[in-house]
Amino acid sequence: VSEFRQDPTTGEWVIVAPERGQRPGAVPKFPARSEGPRREADCPFCPGNEALTPPEILRVPAGGGWRVRVVPNKFAAVVPQSSLQARQGDGLLVSRNGWGFHEVIVETPDHWRQMAQMDPQEVAEVLRVYRHRYNALRTEPRVKMVFIFKNQGERAGTSLSHPHSQLVATSLVPPFIQRRVEVARNYQHDTGNCLYCALRAVEAAAKERLVFESPHHMVLQAFAPRAPFETWLLPVRHYAAFGDIEEAEIDDLAQILRDTLKAIGTQLGDPDFNYLVHSGPMAQDQSSYYHWYLQIIPRIATAAGLELGTGLSVTTALPEETARLLREGWPPAASATEWGAR
Amino acid sequence: VSEFRQDPTTGEWVIVAPERGQRPGAVPKFPARSEGPRREADCPFCPGNEALTPPEILRVPAGGGWRVRVVPNKFAAVVPQSSLQARQGDGLLVSRNGWGFHEVIVETPDHWRQMAQMDPQEVAEVLRVYRHRYNALRTEPRVKMVFIFKNQGERAGTSLSHPHSQLVATSLVPPFIQRRVEVARNYQHDTGNCLYCALRAVEAAAKERLVFESPHHMVLQAFAPRAPFETWLLPVRHYAAFGDIEEAEIDDLAQILRDTLKAIGTQLGDPDFNYLVHSGPMAQDQSSYYHWYLQIIPRIATAAGLELGTGLSVTTALPEETARLLREGWPPAASATEWGAR
Repeated sequence: VSEFRQDPTTGEWVIVAPERGQRPGAVPKFPARSEGPRREADCPFCPGNEALTPPEILRVPAGGGWRVRVVPNKFAAVVPQSSLQARQGDGLLVSRNGWGFHEVIVETPDHWRQMAQMDPQEVAEVLRVYRHRYNALRTEPRVKMVFIFKNQGERAGTSLSHPHSQLVATSLVPPFIQRRVEVARNYQHDTGNCLYCALRAVEAAAKERLVFESPHHMVLQAFAPRAPFETWLLPVRHYAAFGDIEEAEIDDLAQILRDTLKAIGTQLGDPDFNYLVHSGPMAQDQSSYYHWYLQIIPRIATAAGLELGTGLSVTTALPEETARLLREGWPPAASATEWGAR
Repeated sequence: VSEFRQDPTTGEWVIVAPERGQRPGAVPKFPARSEGPRREADCPFCPGNEALTPPEILRVPAGGGWRVRVVPNKFAAVVPQSSLQARQGDGLLVSRNGWGFHEVIVETPDHWRQMAQMDPQEVAEVLRVYRHRYNALRTEPRVKMVFIFKNQGERAGTSLSHPHSQLVATSLVPPFIQRRVEVARNYQHDTGNCLYCALRAVEAAAKERLVFESPHHMVLQAFAPRAPFETWLLPVRHYAAFGDIEEAEIDDLAQILRDTLKAIGTQLGDPDFNYLVHSGPMAQDQSSYYHWYLQIIPRIATAAGLELGTGLSVTTALPEETARLLREGWPPAASATEWGAR
């Protein structure tokens, strides 16, 4: 059973999950595209090895061979079995049970087909599964936050190379997220506007950090990036919960997400990366001041003492410059041929 | 010229420093102890190569062959030359000049002598230099924070293997630090006590995360660690500014810092690590509610999407268990012989 623990000096929480220490230790290497077999004998996410995962939550399509699959994380950071308890401790040292859901979304049966190589329709299918699980879990009364993310590559914290995303749903909303929500709420209080809608307007006018505008999303380089090529996919329509995304928006997001990952891969030589779906916590997911977005963070730098100790990250690339580089190669060459030629 | 930039959604700041992109790219490997030459021909921190660094700030002893040396960081995140300006931007996108001091403390002339191998007297000399520079910079009217830290090894963000620490002094106090100060201030407001003194009392009574108690410091495993074996060296005397450390406290700290690094090295196989000197910002460095401490973070795990997106770090080791492991091997075998035998 894992535990949330609160650092009394910062208010931040960590999850202490000893069971996760038993995860496969060896981190596999990622071969270049199109190399290697399409299936790995001992990969728990490859077809034929379905018995290696905990019992399936969702399979698409429902019967027969699957294209996307959702399973509980075998080495979960949080689990729904532990009973949710009130805070315990002697006042200074506070902990709570690590209650929650931790799911893995297996994005494709193909072990070596990374998202940047997929067709937009395949990415759309993954995003529809995100939406389905988000909406299933948001109705759980104790769930206060549904966070969806992807770790690709060793430097991004992945221990499995098969393309997959993760979903963590908890009863706890970390201060990190509360602060983000607070900033948006204060902005609306002060100005009457949504912070993210205002940002979109400023960036559309400034143009220098703008990579691409699709009908439903803006692709931009973060003004204050934590890493070179930090990219935001910002919805045009104002809504707080990823689960409320509509059909046309999913198709649009799938196309630009695939294109953005491909463009970053071209510029940086297929870097390891994380992407994060910043959706509103349940208390705010229908609010007028929050606005979800997807953030991509390439992992080409290492956080050192300054960042760990002060929160100040040092980045070496100007976002105005990385935006220019991404624009120059936009749209990236389509990968449909690779897929069709298999 | 580098720039501070504020993320409008979180209030966090980053430093955009394009010049740092020109740092030596290749990251050297760390050989096992006692291997290799004691001096590296192309290392800018080795004796004989003093001309490769910017003009020296401090040398100990003052004349002739040095034991500790302070120089400006050649690839500084902040520089004192840029004029300090008020916030600029259109309200949403805020930036400030990257004004400040960024210094390197070369801890020893010996290229391969890491701190865990030093004699306590050598470590004490390094700590006295920290104090000297801290106190020199805290009198600069524009300096609001002096942050001292050490990155050892590639995974800790070092590009140079020669033993060194760093000091960054800025006019900006990042929200990350402001929040830490706020938590301590609120605690004192609510209870009348110092949060860190209260923590020390709780940990002394609980004993399970306690590694060692010296006359002037407590060595403990963090209750809510961001990484396995996260260790705090907490001063017994209540004071906020590292610069106010006294002679006997320096000697005591040098001994337990060396011992702790050696013990962690033994348990984890000489991991890369950062250590951070959490001193109060200038506005609070004589306050009754803040209390400085030194935090050691071994870098054996990688922050993944969950931590980047929610601030929730997942750690696999129980601090009560790591405390037991460190206690079992305490005190670690002395290294004086190694040094004497050279």
